[in-house]
Amino acid sequence: MNSRRTFIKQAGLLSAASMMPFGRLLASNTKNKKMDTRTKWSDGSRLVVSISMQFEAGGQPDNAESPFPKNLEKGFIDLPASTWYQYGYKEGIPRMLDNWDELGIKVTSHMVGSAVLKNPELAKEIVARGHEAAAHGMNWSSQYNLPYTEEKKFIKDGVDAIKMTTGFNPVGYNANWLRRGENTLSILQELGFKYHIDDLSRDEPFIIKVNQQDFAVVPYTLRNNDILLIEGKNFSADQFFNQVKLEFEQLYAESEFKRRQLSISFHDRIGGTPQMVRAAKDLIRYIQQHEGVAFKRKDEIAELTLGDRTSIRE
Amino acid sequence: MNSRRTFIKQAGLLSAASMMPFGRLLASNTKNKKMDTRTKWSDGSRLVVSISMQFEAGGQPDNAESPFPKNLEKGFIDLPASTWYQYGYKEGIPRMLDNWDELGIKVTSHMVGSAVLKNPELAKEIVARGHEAAAHGMNWSSQYNLPYTEEKKFIKDGVDAIKMTTGFNPVGYNANWLRRGENTLSILQELGFKYHIDDLSRDEPFIIKVNQQDFAVVPYTLRNNDILLIEGKNFSADQFFNQVKLEFEQLYAESEFKRRQLSISFHDRIGGTPQMVRAAKDLIRYIQQHEGVAFKRKDEIAELTLGDRTSIRE
Amino acid sequence: MNSRRTFIKQAGLLSAASMMPFGRLLASNTKNKKMDTRTKWSDGSRLVVSISMQFEAGGQPDNAESPFPKNLEKGFIDLPASTWYQYGYKEGIPRMLDNWDELGIKVTSHMVGSAVLKNPELAKEIVARGHEAAAHGMNWSSQYNLPYTEEKKFIKDGVDAIKMTTGFNPVGYNANWLRRGENTLSILQELGFKYHIDDLSRDEPFIIKVNQQDFAVVPYTLRNNDILLIEGKNFSADQFFNQVKLEFEQLYAESEFKRRQLSISFHDRIGGTPQMVRAAKDLIRYIQQHEGVAFKRKDEIAELTLGDRTSIRE
Amino acid sequence: MNSRRTFIKQAGLLSAASMMPFGRLLASNTKNKKMDTRTKWSDGSRLVVSISMQFEAGGQPDNAESPFPKNLEKGFIDLPASTWYQYGYKEGIPRMLDNWDELGIKVTSHMVGSAVLKNPELAKEIVARGHEAAAHGMNWSSQYNLPYTEEKKFIKDGVDAIKMTTGFNPVGYNANWLRRGENTLSILQELGFKYHIDDLSRDEPFIIKVNQQDFAVVPYTLRNNDILLIEGKNFSADQFFNQVKLEFEQLYAESEFKRRQLSISFHDRIGGTPQMVRAAKDLIRYIQQHEGVAFKRKDEIAELTLGDRTSIRE
Repeated sequence: MNSRRTFIKQAGLLSAASMMPFGRLLASNTKNKKMDTRTKWSDGSRLVVSISMQFEAGGQPDNAESPFPKNLEKGFIDLPASTWYQYGYKEGIPRMLDNWDELGIKVTSHMVGSAVLKNPELAKEIVARGHEAAAHGMNWSSQYNLPYTEEKKFIKDGVDAIKMTTGFNPVGYNANWLRRGENTLSILQELGFKYHIDDLSRDEPFIIKVNQQDFAVVPYTLRNNDILLIEGKNFSADQFFNQVKLEFEQLYAESEFKRRQLSISFHDRIGGTPQMVRAAKDLIRYIQQHEGVAFKRKDEIAELTLGDRTSIRE
Repeated sequence: MNSRRTFIKQAGLLSAASMMPFGRLLASNTKNKKMDTRTKWSDGSRLVVSISMQFEAGGQPDNAESPFPKNLEKGFIDLPASTWYQYGYKEGIPRMLDNWDELGIKVTSHMVGSAVLKNPELAKEIVARGHEAAAHGMNWSSQYNLPYTEEKKFIKDGVDAIKMTTGFNPVGYNANWLRRGENTLSILQELGFKYHIDDLSRDEPFIIKVNQQDFAVVPYTLRNNDILLIEGKNFSADQFFNQVKLEFEQLYAESEFKRRQLSISFHDRIGGTPQMVRAAKDLIRYIQQHEGVAFKRKDEIAELTLGDRTSIRE
Repeated sequence: MNSRRTFIKQAGLLSAASMMPFGRLLASNTKNKKMDTRTKWSDGSRLVVSISMQFEAGGQPDNAESPFPKNLEKGFIDLPASTWYQYGYKEGIPRMLDNWDELGIKVTSHMVGSAVLKNPELAKEIVARGHEAAAHGMNWSSQYNLPYTEEKKFIKDGVDAIKMTTGFNPVGYNANWLRRGENTLSILQELGFKYHIDDLSRDEPFIIKVNQQDFAVVPYTLRNNDILLIEGKNFSADQFFNQVKLEFEQLYAESEFKRRQLSISFHDRIGGTPQMVRAAKDLIRYIQQHEGVAFKRKDEIAELTLGDRTSIRE
Repeated sequence: MNSRRTFIKQAGLLSAASMMPFGRLLASNTKNKKMDTRTKWSDGSRLVVSISMQFEAGGQPDNAESPFPKNLEKGFIDLPASTWYQYGYKEGIPRMLDNWDELGIKVTSHMVGSAVLKNPELAKEIVARGHEAAAHGMNWSSQYNLPYTEEKKFIKDGVDAIKMTTGFNPVGYNANWLRRGENTLSILQELGFKYHIDDLSRDEPFIIKVNQQDFAVVPYTLRNNDILLIEGKNFSADQFFNQVKLEFEQLYAESEFKRRQLSISFHDRIGGTPQMVRAAKDLIRYIQQHEGVAFKRKDEIAELTLGDRTSIRE
């Protein structure tokens, strides 16, 4: 079922009767510095870190959710809330782009089609600076509840907006609030997508069959996600830092024995604030001090996964 | 009523008129290193630490509560939420099992019957690696509102699922959200259970009479429980660590003078994330540095309690 | 209007045109170690710290608010929630009593009448160990909405429960959730009370006229209050510690120039947990290292206030 | 569009093909200590810090939102909640005024007209101690939903209350919960205002055209705002400190290359507590250790912005 099982079987020592706990076994392996090289990623990496940068602001509907109170009278526009969104493209994305460059990493930008059309220069700049453009629907709205034809158009329009604006042909998909419907994967395969991210089930990418073809799942997380700060009052930036640092430390330790992926996400208007960019910078610098860690775009991860016959299949 | 009272009486010094506060008294006792050995557990432990690992994922109903927004349209399945649950058995439990082995401790796994039937190999592995299988109902649903016969069947079916799958005969019980009904304890006693945990009233196990028989209560906590993170936005992993560390420090200090229990809980899809496993590892390693601390399964705690004539009785 | 004003006037230096900011003035005063002794409390203290210990558990109504989900079906009792409350008298108050003794301080216990009748021995022990018994209503319920006669009976019954059980005659009052009504103060004065705490307006006690008599207000706080943890998910114990530590540091600095009061509160089932008692112990030990700090019961504070002609009057 | 773009163009190096990431470029600039002086503020500052002090308490409507439960029976006044507001003018503003003096900084006080009339001496003192009085509406209520004439009167009455009480003629505006309406800016321009703050879109002031005239926007933030603590349970004071410290560190680093503004806000009854004043003091002292940081009132910032032909225009 997965490499953990295989490893346990190979170790051949574990049983209820065994007096030597598994942990000790791991510990001695560590001492002997005996690495199971088959557990590495095919490019030699030990742990892959994947960063998402949502480009959504400007594409939101009127009076979309924001940190402002929900008591706005009907018939009025929430003017300050719309400036909260503007921050996403005026400050957030530009600041994050500078941060990725300063850190020397490339990320995956999930782009809402209408946000791209609203700020085409910024979309172009994201791609020009070496990042991946992934599709995120034509509009900021649900698709799980659309009939097949409408959903296909919704996805394709978003792809076209990105392609025509940036020249980048997206191969990865992310649905609004991750909520895909029963037809979504099939449509994505028909449209030439290679992977989607709307799955929280593993800390490692895997392969599924869609329309009898291999299709990669590059899993996402909610816990390493600035969405924790969306209402502006749940997490502080330092809590986010502390939590993801703990996440890295565990995954890095595990990556000695099996391939692992750390997925971290930032939204334009939330992760693009100075406090969050500073937290991200401190975090990534800390991560970069560890040997065997590779920062990769999700299209690269999907390609590695699809091309590796030892990838998990479900 | 309890050992504190007894101790106060023995000390024989405390009164409103006493000029020497109790705290000073404790302080001098500490200096003299005079230990009241009768306050120890019958196996010589000073503080018992009991860890719960809920095995529930896979047994949840459709569209069960998750970190996703509650605005899903009627008639649709929350597909990403179901992958959040899958994480519990694909990553969470396996990671925690490795962690317990690495730390050299055994825990109590509260297993929902339907979750066991969904992932029988994992249930077997939990038991094979030396942990206790405790019953947690046949399904992920309330039982406090069931009539006697239905509730008895609900509990017994869960027991049978565990027994037939793992070979382990559960003697401990945990109701959904701790919500037992008026008949629950009586049914548990009839079915051969030795203890239940659905009680938050003490930091020490105690004995009650059920159907005129001794029955152990091994109390649970909500505050040392990863359920604090269930909505994914209340606590961060480092807050959990800080809070439970303070809890240990106080209970350990108290355990010099009376027997104490620290109860900590982790759910498959919450406590099984890398960040929480790392927090748990750091916490338990810290705890293990203290003399007189014993990590025990709840069936062991119940047995110690029932076999000790100095246990609290209510 | 208050001592700050007076001080400003005495300093005689402050004006919009002044080039020397007030802060600098304070700074030079600090250097000269010139203390304005009139700003001290009449007993010579610089900062008074007042701790509340609510004794309410056992007196709560059926299915009172607790950390459990609010979805209990009608017609059932929330059995685990009732054990959460039991914790208040079985572990919480006893643990806090030991802590106060160990720290050598006396506190004010706000006692609900029905809680006293449910656990009379514990009420007696609180008083026997030197703490103040203050009244907190006969039952755990609102009084602001009661007619005069009913409210008077509600208050008096609570007083009688305390007096007959403990021998202590309460002179201080705290209404449920601080919500007094228009008649409350008048009734309190008629019943012989000396002070109430249901006021958040100052960090210093003050005198008001009730029925043409002097009546003391010993103000309370919500921010230095374990009620922040009531839902069990807002604050962690270490956050509480950090927040109140900052509060102390500021008030202590201010107390060099005017009399100040720090009010901290703990409820039986919340502040009586090991983690919160540990946080309280660390906090109070830190506070005790500072010269001029006095821990006092609220009846002592009321007496000091009423007997001091320089107290603030409103 | 803004200075970042300009800078990128001037650097002339950035392209998708470039092998040297932008971050490295920044790094080498840093090494060479080559400063782009045009990116400084026209007064030579590198980073401007602007602090808001809301003066609202006393002007709130009956039973306005507070940390108290929302279950008050109809027809009653929430007496303890009104003392929570009183704290704002009895302790909060006076304490903050002392803090600003001690730190040697001047701030902008957004004053609700009815709060000024309720406590005229305090309003006068704010101005006398060198701070800016900005307008914040006549009452504590929404204006986005008022017709033109009513809104103009609402704004003008507030201005008059401030002018007649303090002698200060306000040139800056802040709407209740930032919620301006479609006519607000036009009215402000007609009434002689120079700037407003109800915009979250940038970390730098900018110029817009209102009635064909230049009008400054001095942007505000919600994330560096004590409003995060408004319900009294989301953030602790130390979280606020940690979050804003991260914010400063990032903005300060950025300010080497472009002009930046850090906006921090405190409300009388929230930011005026000892714990928050202590957090603010520690924070500001930390900020003051950095070269090139200037604390300025918002009227000064608006003036600098309007007088600088390199300001961003939208």
